[in-house]
Amino acid sequence: MTLSSPAPTLGVVGGGQLGRMLAEAASPLGVEVVVSDPTPDAPAAPVARDQVVGDFDDPETIRELAERADFLTFEIELADPDLLEAVAEETGTPVHPDPETLRIIEDKLVQKRRLAEAGVPVPEFREVNSADELREALGDLGYPAMLKARKGGYDGRGNVPVESPEDVESAFAEIVDAAQGGSQDDRSGVAMVEEMVDFERELAVMGCLGDGERDTFPVTETIHEEEILRETRSPAEADESVRERAREVALDVLDVMEGRGVYGIELFQGPDDEILLNEIAPRPHNSGHWTIEGCHTSQFEQHVRAVTGRALGDTSRRAPTVSANILGDVEERQDATLSGEDAVFEWPRAHLHWYGKHEVYRLRKMGHLTLVGKPDERTDRILADVRELRDGLSFR
Amino acid sequence: MTLSSPAPTLGVVGGGQLGRMLAEAASPLGVEVVVSDPTPDAPAAPVARDQVVGDFDDPETIRELAERADFLTFEIELADPDLLEAVAEETGTPVHPDPETLRIIEDKLVQKRRLAEAGVPVPEFREVNSADELREALGDLGYPAMLKARKGGYDGRGNVPVESPEDVESAFAEIVDAAQGGSQDDRSGVAMVEEMVDFERELAVMGCLGDGERDTFPVTETIHEEEILRETRSPAEADESVRERAREVALDVLDVMEGRGVYGIELFQGPDDEILLNEIAPRPHNSGHWTIEGCHTSQFEQHVRAVTGRALGDTSRRAPTVSANILGDVEERQDATLSGEDAVFEWPRAHLHWYGKHEVYRLRKMGHLTLVGKPDERTDRILADVRELRDGLSFR
Repeated sequence: MTLSSPAPTLGVVGGGQLGRMLAEAASPLGVEVVVSDPTPDAPAAPVARDQVVGDFDDPETIRELAERADFLTFEIELADPDLLEAVAEETGTPVHPDPETLRIIEDKLVQKRRLAEAGVPVPEFREVNSADELREALGDLGYPAMLKARKGGYDGRGNVPVESPEDVESAFAEIVDAAQGGSQDDRSGVAMVEEMVDFERELAVMGCLGDGERDTFPVTETIHEEEILRETRSPAEADESVRERAREVALDVLDVMEGRGVYGIELFQGPDDEILLNEIAPRPHNSGHWTIEGCHTSQFEQHVRAVTGRALGDTSRRAPTVSANILGDVEERQDATLSGEDAVFEWPRAHLHWYGKHEVYRLRKMGHLTLVGKPDERTDRILADVRELRDGLSFR
Repeated sequence: MTLSSPAPTLGVVGGGQLGRMLAEAASPLGVEVVVSDPTPDAPAAPVARDQVVGDFDDPETIRELAERADFLTFEIELADPDLLEAVAEETGTPVHPDPETLRIIEDKLVQKRRLAEAGVPVPEFREVNSADELREALGDLGYPAMLKARKGGYDGRGNVPVESPEDVESAFAEIVDAAQGGSQDDRSGVAMVEEMVDFERELAVMGCLGDGERDTFPVTETIHEEEILRETRSPAEADESVRERAREVALDVLDVMEGRGVYGIELFQGPDDEILLNEIAPRPHNSGHWTIEGCHTSQFEQHVRAVTGRALGDTSRRAPTVSANILGDVEERQDATLSGEDAVFEWPRAHLHWYGKHEVYRLRKMGHLTLVGKPDERTDRILADVRELRDGLSFR
């Protein structure tokens, strides 16, 4: 393809922080971004050419987005695969990744089945459509285990740990409630349960599918609390052989995916150093934000390259790099006013990424910090630094 | 200052490529950008919050920009210092750099005088208000020399070499023509003449003035043809002592400047390795585009930090880095369609920066390429690579 005027336009379903960072990365490449999002003045709006305001599953919104775009993609799994497929066919605007991939991923049970069939190592899991089925499954898997809503969960929402047989009824009731729209009468298709992996550490690999090529970014260690990502460090502390195995599993996962783009592949390093797949996101992912400063190509530039049919960029790491999320530390939803940022600007090689969200609530992702280390510096020290900086920020 | 909603807004007079790259850099910091530019849908428009369409010296345009902004700056010397000063006072929106700096810089004669007074080494120069004065001055300075329009010149426009006494009349007539508005009756204040420095190489230093702090980016070598910047390489090939001297001169220049921001400081390395000041731009500069990938903080982020009163970022170089401008290679003004970009995307560690200009004409700056080398790699090889890539691009 050639760069000409008007500029090639990428339509992105979702205008949150991922859409914003996609727009930041697209501009140097000469690609304009239009996003669709139900919230007016979404985070991506100030740096996008335009925002179409409308729901992710609203046909008129998605059609308008497609008509204004040369390429379509999504930054949120709530995008509707059937609608994307129909609109892509109707308007002739190609959509990447393939909506079929979204269908596989949006249902965690379908996802796990497909990956297991393809030989990707996954934790043991069962479909459960009632509290009785859950109890039976846990007879095999043992306690504790993780009960998961099959659809719609993210950042720990829709995941309920089941510690003992006494928790079964309440956990299942909770997951039915969490799966919005699931009434008491229709519990089937709602949940799955998975063995709780007693992991050594959590790893993540950003995979990329281009036009006839595939690649991965360096293996990253992710640190969660309350099932929300808090920090990443790259390189991961894991041994070389473990990282190599993580990369192999990620490449196997990519073989199951259809369509171009980057994929966030979350993994467990188990007690015997085996690698097990945790979850996949068919889009740029929080575990890859560090690549903006840490790699020669960022995950966002890579996604734009892939979706627009350009060659993939160099994924190698420039220096040891850590990141920490800036999360809402308030109890009540309120206007967002951050204090303490001066220390971030004063810290050499600290990079603020602010998402421009108007309101903050508890644990909402409001931005992130990235710290770039010296070549061969160990990440322990930089991780301690980024935590100190992060802890100096507050919305209170 | 704190980050809150609505976001802090930076108003930028000028919406060209510098405004665009400022907007790209401002977004992660949580700063929104509004630009003013006479050309509708200027290069910065797709990534700015908004563009006010109007001339650089139109009071209503600049007032509207100031009213929408928390901070004002400019990316073009055509900004009107009197107007900026008046509007800043009227609206209470601070403007950086100080309009006084713009006054000093916009008139090359005033600029040279002030710098010479401050002890900055400059080539020998004379004010010339007629062909006779020019002939007299060249009796002192010798031939060849460079006749310069005092105001409005850039990218070599407004610079006329005078090779011999026979050129004097025509050169002076040309400079009067070039200084638009200068009639045959009013030639005073139009021109200056400067000795032609037989330089070893040209160097550039991006200087930065923050809130009570100052710094410089690493010394860069610039390569011009027809007085238009073609390539940069950093580190410069010059000896360590020469680079140190260039940095000292840049710091002396900064002492003359008033107001926060980054400054492009162009220097000559003379035949005996002395450093002479060539020109100053009170804004991000083409010679600093390589800092986007090459340094821990880019010149654009640095300018946003400085102007909004934040601490300056780390200016150190991450790796040897070269850049090459993508210039219009067509004779007639026409719609811009670039071909050959695929090779750029396929080249590891090559970065395209596209400015989104709708039309191309001969030597118009349409974008640039940056190549990042391996640590300790010499820039000869990377420079050859970037030239090869650049030469593969065409608008024809």
